[in-house]
Amino acid sequence: MRENDEHSRRGLSRRGLFGVAGLAAGGLAVGGAAGAAAGATLASTDANARYPFYGAHQSGIVTPAQDRLHFAAFDIAASCDRAGLISLLTDWSDAAARMTAGEDVGQDGATGGPLQAPPEDTGEALGLPASALTITIGFGPSLFTDADGADRFGIADRRPSALVDLPHFSGDILDPAISGGDVCIQACADDPQVAVHAIRNLSRIAFGRAALRWSQLGFGRTSSTSTSQQTPRNLFGFKDGTANVKAENGDDVQTAVWADAADGTEWMAGGSYLVTRKIRMIIETWDRASLGEQQRIIGRTKGEGAPLSGGTEFTEPDFDRTVDGAPAIDPHSHVHLAHPSVNEKAMLLRRGYNYVEGNDELGRLNAGLFFMAYQRDPRRQFIPIQRRLAANDLMNEYVRHVSSAIFAVPPGAAEGGFVGSGLFG
Amino acid sequence: MRENDEHSRRGLSRRGLFGVAGLAAGGLAVGGAAGAAAGATLASTDANARYPFYGAHQSGIVTPAQDRLHFAAFDIAASCDRAGLISLLTDWSDAAARMTAGEDVGQDGATGGPLQAPPEDTGEALGLPASALTITIGFGPSLFTDADGADRFGIADRRPSALVDLPHFSGDILDPAISGGDVCIQACADDPQVAVHAIRNLSRIAFGRAALRWSQLGFGRTSSTSTSQQTPRNLFGFKDGTANVKAENGDDVQTAVWADAADGTEWMAGGSYLVTRKIRMIIETWDRASLGEQQRIIGRTKGEGAPLSGGTEFTEPDFDRTVDGAPAIDPHSHVHLAHPSVNEKAMLLRRGYNYVEGNDELGRLNAGLFFMAYQRDPRRQFIPIQRRLAANDLMNEYVRHVSSAIFAVPPGAAEGGFVGSGLFG
Repeated sequence: MRENDEHSRRGLSRRGLFGVAGLAAGGLAVGGAAGAAAGATLASTDANARYPFYGAHQSGIVTPAQDRLHFAAFDIAASCDRAGLISLLTDWSDAAARMTAGEDVGQDGATGGPLQAPPEDTGEALGLPASALTITIGFGPSLFTDADGADRFGIADRRPSALVDLPHFSGDILDPAISGGDVCIQACADDPQVAVHAIRNLSRIAFGRAALRWSQLGFGRTSSTSTSQQTPRNLFGFKDGTANVKAENGDDVQTAVWADAADGTEWMAGGSYLVTRKIRMIIETWDRASLGEQQRIIGRTKGEGAPLSGGTEFTEPDFDRTVDGAPAIDPHSHVHLAHPSVNEKAMLLRRGYNYVEGNDELGRLNAGLFFMAYQRDPRRQFIPIQRRLAANDLMNEYVRHVSSAIFAVPPGAAEGGFVGSGLFG
Repeated sequence: MRENDEHSRRGLSRRGLFGVAGLAAGGLAVGGAAGAAAGATLASTDANARYPFYGAHQSGIVTPAQDRLHFAAFDIAASCDRAGLISLLTDWSDAAARMTAGEDVGQDGATGGPLQAPPEDTGEALGLPASALTITIGFGPSLFTDADGADRFGIADRRPSALVDLPHFSGDILDPAISGGDVCIQACADDPQVAVHAIRNLSRIAFGRAALRWSQLGFGRTSSTSTSQQTPRNLFGFKDGTANVKAENGDDVQTAVWADAADGTEWMAGGSYLVTRKIRMIIETWDRASLGEQQRIIGRTKGEGAPLSGGTEFTEPDFDRTVDGAPAIDPHSHVHLAHPSVNEKAMLLRRGYNYVEGNDELGRLNAGLFFMAYQRDPRRQFIPIQRRLAANDLMNEYVRHVSSAIFAVPPGAAEGGFVGSGLFG
């Protein structure tokens, strides 16, 4: 798509009008969000917020959760070889760096190029601020070894042991067409048009090399990943993710999110593992459950979000407390089964979004949670937690897991490099 | 759902924390948005903005277009009779007044009621500000006479002559399952969770009396309905709706939007007619068209949005101007064919939204425009304009009309009344 980096970096900043004053031409656009990237103190509704694409870790993981999501899973074309994959990752990284800086993907923008050629950028984000866009790239198991067991890209022996194929969980009714994928791209922003623009242009850049397998839009982040954020509500009407890993808690992040070279896969050091699950909520049935039943299932009050053992939202649940001889918090409640204390201290950095996709033929809203969780090792985190939930969670009556995927999310790229370069070194 | 109005108006204001100070209990919540309702000077991103539900006109028409849409079409249940329809419209109006004021739909909110009963409100908007929510109700042709020609509600003779069945337009490939509907509800807000909450709770209130037929989410308003708003871009990357009817232009609004008693249907005086069209854009093909071709099709420049006859965005197109002997603006361009000068001065108040719904099996984004236009009489406005576009528009190669509907949108209700009461008087 692009002739060379120096060339393209001279391109226009389409969002300059709204951008941070003093942005140096050719440099990275790290403006009002610089403090946030370091300490996550930014409110996620600052339309001018920008997060750097390059760095030790990819943005979009401990970044304070933005309000909107466009997630895409791609399959690499059969005709694409190792060199093609490397060129694709290079082009994607370069375009991602431009877009997260609030620029067009092409040197000429959507409007300054020759009339005879298609515009390099599709243009629908022209004039919009960076809107806290982050673009996060990950690799699925099928990138390492395809369905026929072939090592298409010469990387089969680099597959991390933590990148397991997820087991079948009790109750799974997965649709393969919206599960898996060779590569994923997570675009999060505070403006859906900016997130959609990112996926659309990255998909276009991939033309002939990779094709969209499935994609997912989301709104209303269902988790807070920063102590500066209020805990949002999911479509069950409850606060979700009170006990989430927060960016400010460095020990938790190091223990629960970032892979380490000592884990056995050096190229993944500073990376993480992402599990996605599309969880349809049977909303109409839920809405007919009594308030007491809803609270018993969740283990928290609906209003405040306090554990049923008492206190306020951030009071630690007391699973030993009894009322009239029965546990105040049902042992099969969601809060109990998902709690680190019953999962050998396993925590997740959840970063999910609500989705609504019209209605089904019965007039029921097709809606739920697109669950996303980052972690250091799914074998010790998502899998045992989900096994416990799938077997016992009172909430299972009201949810259906319809899609599932797992990705190794490499560390960030150095400026001028590309995400995943360590895989090919 | 509710015992009586007095009772419910004493309900808690769930959004009081974020609300406008000094809100009088039991009264209407008209705070920071009061000026906007009168003069439309408000930026639509003020999360505390509130628009009154009651008034001479329904809100959500000349209201400055909010950023998000959840639109729903309902069919009235076979078991619902005239009295049932009136009670449904009463309950809907009452709930709409509460939600647009930033309150729960139920007296007890989602959290204050008895543990033994389902919460009256589903709760996912607890703690969120009013977010400029408007709820707008309309009636489709099938409400007046059903498919068998029956006059179920005794209103067949009240059907406005302007509420015609839309003709077939060249190129239409409509899906009946996502077209038509007895009643529509348009929920617009600056927060998608607030718009979704509104449709979900109105759908729940209708249980047993009406069921969702189809619904549509949208983002990134594609039209500005106020001179205070910048013209947004559609997914073709072009500014859309530069020449839209603006709320500040009182003459245009009176001429082009509001129905008048002199039009022949007294109960519709102060109402309007809404046409919706789901227009899928063939984005991947569009993205391969050259910049010159894209601009020729639209008739405007991509960057500035200026007519190809010269000037800036708001310069009137000069259809007589030629360059090298050819018209500067192609006579088959979208801007020419849709222009009032070739449509006997017919104008529309457009209020559409972009949509993206994942991708199809070929990996193409399933995306486009959910077109909505309010007008005084579709026979003189939408229909002739669309006939001309369907026959000649260069853009047709890149779009597919897949859903269509028309609704009579009654005037606003007086406080304590309900939308559509004039139909039963």
